[in-house]
Amino acid sequence: MKTATKVALALSVSACASTLAYAQMKPEDAIRARQSVMRVIALNFGPIAQMAQGKMPWNKDMFVANALRIEAIWAMQPTRFFVPGSDHPVAGAKIASFTDVRPEVWSQADKWKAAAGRMDEAVAGLAKAARGADEAAMKAAAGALGKSCGGCHDDFRKK
Amino acid sequence: MKTATKVALALSVSACASTLAYAQMKPEDAIRARQSVMRVIALNFGPIAQMAQGKMPWNKDMFVANALRIEAIWAMQPTRFFVPGSDHPVAGAKIASFTDVRPEVWSQADKWKAAAGRMDEAVAGLAKAARGADEAAMKAAAGALGKSCGGCHDDFRKK
Repeated sequence: MKTATKVALALSVSACASTLAYAQMKPEDAIRARQSVMRVIALNFGPIAQMAQGKMPWNKDMFVANALRIEAIWAMQPTRFFVPGSDHPVAGAKIASFTDVRPEVWSQADKWKAAAGRMDEAVAGLAKAARGADEAAMKAAAGALGKSCGGCHDDFRKK
Repeated sequence: MKTATKVALALSVSACASTLAYAQMKPEDAIRARQSVMRVIALNFGPIAQMAQGKMPWNKDMFVANALRIEAIWAMQPTRFFVPGSDHPVAGAKIASFTDVRPEVWSQADKWKAAAGRMDEAVAGLAKAARGADEAAMKAAAGALGKSCGGCHDDFRKK
């Protein structure tokens, strides 16, 4: 367990949304965490969006698996990874060599939090639809989630 | 859905483990995908390992949530992201500015696949324990998963 132990120690301050203060997370770790979480969500949302738009054949099992995976990952509350000092790349850091975050995350915090709240609702809506049997409802929920992703990215992520 | 549509299009080749050929994925996208997936797994495994080692107070709900999240994410089959050409950083790429992968992933492919297979077993073992009620079994399964992580990292990831 040599490597695992090292991993665990390295994550001791930063890993747990429920019990640890993310404000203590180092900016480079926070940038990497949020980019990783968002990327994994995107890897799962890609096929869902494609199916919803008719660009990929309907595959209910895949849709449901990906939707519930997004629910599980969003439950990590990735908005907590926008810690102070994570508004710019960290010089000399192996990781976090870039960030596309816009300063409005902090200067318009209320607006940003509201957008994140709409993401909570959209993810819940997608998961609820995925637990049902209605293909049209699933596709509509995917569209709503896409709109929610875009609502934050358009205002708070650099083009 | 402007941004979401762009995301979906960008992912059209790469996003879906079940239906698309990962060998077609661009190396920089594959590097980013595997790093992101591994990072999100680590973010979830950190508290589990800490609890198993008595370095964090036992929190069954968190242990179970993180264990099942790891199961869901590992089901994306991240070994598929080790595509040809992803054995070195991609010059000029905004992402994938580094990779710690060792060439033995490809030169000792059978050994690497066997190590990945042990990870499959360890993740399944952790998820099974998490669905039970036995705290000791959960902690033991966490230790086995840590050993499995380390088994691959020690041989196939640069120090």
